[in-house]
Amino acid sequence: MLITAEAEQELIEDVLRGYGATPAEASLQARVLVEADLRGQYSHGLQRVPMLVRRIRNGVLRPGAEVRSRWVTDSFLSVDGGAGFGPPTAFAAVAQLAERVTDTGVAVAAVSNSNHLGMLACYVEELARRGHVGIALTTSEALVHPWGGTRMMVGTNPIGVAVPTDGEPFLLDMSTGAVSMGKILRHARRAEPIPLGWAVDERGASTTDAAAAANGAISPFGGAKGYALGLAFELIVGVLTGSELGREVKGTLDGEAVCNKGDVFICLSPERLGLGGTLRRVTEYLDEVRTSPRAEGVDAIDVPGDRSRRLRARYLRDGIPMDDAVWQSVEALRADAEVHSGQC
Amino acid sequence: MLITAEAEQELIEDVLRGYGATPAEASLQARVLVEADLRGQYSHGLQRVPMLVRRIRNGVLRPGAEVRSRWVTDSFLSVDGGAGFGPPTAFAAVAQLAERVTDTGVAVAAVSNSNHLGMLACYVEELARRGHVGIALTTSEALVHPWGGTRMMVGTNPIGVAVPTDGEPFLLDMSTGAVSMGKILRHARRAEPIPLGWAVDERGASTTDAAAAANGAISPFGGAKGYALGLAFELIVGVLTGSELGREVKGTLDGEAVCNKGDVFICLSPERLGLGGTLRRVTEYLDEVRTSPRAEGVDAIDVPGDRSRRLRARYLRDGIPMDDAVWQSVEALRADAEVHSGQC
Repeated sequence: MLITAEAEQELIEDVLRGYGATPAEASLQARVLVEADLRGQYSHGLQRVPMLVRRIRNGVLRPGAEVRSRWVTDSFLSVDGGAGFGPPTAFAAVAQLAERVTDTGVAVAAVSNSNHLGMLACYVEELARRGHVGIALTTSEALVHPWGGTRMMVGTNPIGVAVPTDGEPFLLDMSTGAVSMGKILRHARRAEPIPLGWAVDERGASTTDAAAAANGAISPFGGAKGYALGLAFELIVGVLTGSELGREVKGTLDGEAVCNKGDVFICLSPERLGLGGTLRRVTEYLDEVRTSPRAEGVDAIDVPGDRSRRLRARYLRDGIPMDDAVWQSVEALRADAEVHSGQC
Repeated sequence: MLITAEAEQELIEDVLRGYGATPAEASLQARVLVEADLRGQYSHGLQRVPMLVRRIRNGVLRPGAEVRSRWVTDSFLSVDGGAGFGPPTAFAAVAQLAERVTDTGVAVAAVSNSNHLGMLACYVEELARRGHVGIALTTSEALVHPWGGTRMMVGTNPIGVAVPTDGEPFLLDMSTGAVSMGKILRHARRAEPIPLGWAVDERGASTTDAAAAANGAISPFGGAKGYALGLAFELIVGVLTGSELGREVKGTLDGEAVCNKGDVFICLSPERLGLGGTLRRVTEYLDEVRTSPRAEGVDAIDVPGDRSRRLRARYLRDGIPMDDAVWQSVEALRADAEVHSGQC
């Protein structure tokens, strides 16, 4: 089926409001999920709604949470999300940074006690649209093995980076795992092999068997370097937010545990540093990269952000291809929610 | 031959002082080169001295340079290195950050117009020893092809990250290229093949022919993700330092060009944020990673910093294995320098 972004937004808002979310919470949470689907990142889209509802029902995601944020210093914001929705807390933090950085040149937010914030691209893009550099880090359940190891010890710890240009921002959003656990599980359900390099089995050997991989661990992207980077991000987030590390991190994939990961946003202002003029050179340089000679069989050289922008434009025009079962499961939640609200 | 760290330090200091470096400049530049050799990073060690001398002779590295640093805001330091040695300028910036961050929680330095600063580990380690998180980025000549491309368009742009623990710091220092150009050239000289994945030939095809690779481009580590990350670092450094981008970056590998890359240091203080106590948990977690189950044939699971610490301890005890020709070439420079100083 094809759905419109508006229909998806409305569906998610209806469900979440039905389960107690304020209009603002429902709107921002829905926006982040819709944006993921619009960019083909389905693992961070509509399919997350049933889990959000389960978490609300279990009391580990609290609609209407009181978010407490405090400037520890002029340039460092500490945020306690009150176990609420991730996106409204993260957007609020980012908005505070965007304003503050015009004065301080650099501003950092450390968020703890907040639920999964979804695709990092949304937050750093917000900063780049205001002319700032944005860097986002967040931790997650341990799913990745150490280099040489067999056990899931490190999160898939993604990084988001946005840099403003004269036109559309440079926009990177990537996990430090070779692949998502969702993808491995999908292959396992269909009994399809996975490419070597995605994961190891229980004994730490690279495997093409998706079921064995699900019992093993995801590999870091790029070997030892990717492992090192994922671990670095885990520690940076840990020591700046006081959140948990490694196998103690819970609550971004399950329905029961309090979410104890952390999020870090770093915002920098070229304009405040008198370097607003460099953005023209960034635009030029990225065009030099895009138009540089291509290897045989390559249609286009992209810079981060290009592909998801193309997909987004197409899906906005033609509709978002959506798995029927996913849509129906959320439709069913809406029906439940209406009953649920009716009872209140 | 085996040399002691002291002998190497003295040799380099003698040469650089002979060519006009102040004692402080000579000492810090030597320290960074010796530390690289002590950690087995020969490409950043003694073998760089002849190029430094060539740059001094050509007037593009200025001993006794006046470094101008200015706090643009309370937490953002802008540094003009006056075309001087990279290490003294970078150490001075890092020392200023380390002090300031105890007040501001986060502090950033952007360095431009400074020569190659050597191994990033030295600077971030300095921050971690004082209890701070350190992140360092620097740009370099374009040697890496875009994903899908054939031409060198992106620097090997390394990242350094240090996180303090209760014991030795977590210490990451890695390039975003799959390998160094030095290594490819060494294979080409010996007519030895290189592993697939290190580089592409002129047409953008992965190659095992080192000579073809030298005429092609280094591949990013970890495929498209490594490319994206290297490009992100290039832009972040560019817009915060006003330095050049891509193929316009010069002066870290050649003897003639003014060095127009930039360096960025980000320093964060867990203690200032009231999170000094998390360092104990970091120590525990890293030990959990190190002692987690190993894959077959794996002797040890390391976390970043472990391997170079082991090597350093061994080389301090037994001496640093050094290429005779490299040592002799620098000895010859010392003899030249003595004549040169005598003439002044």
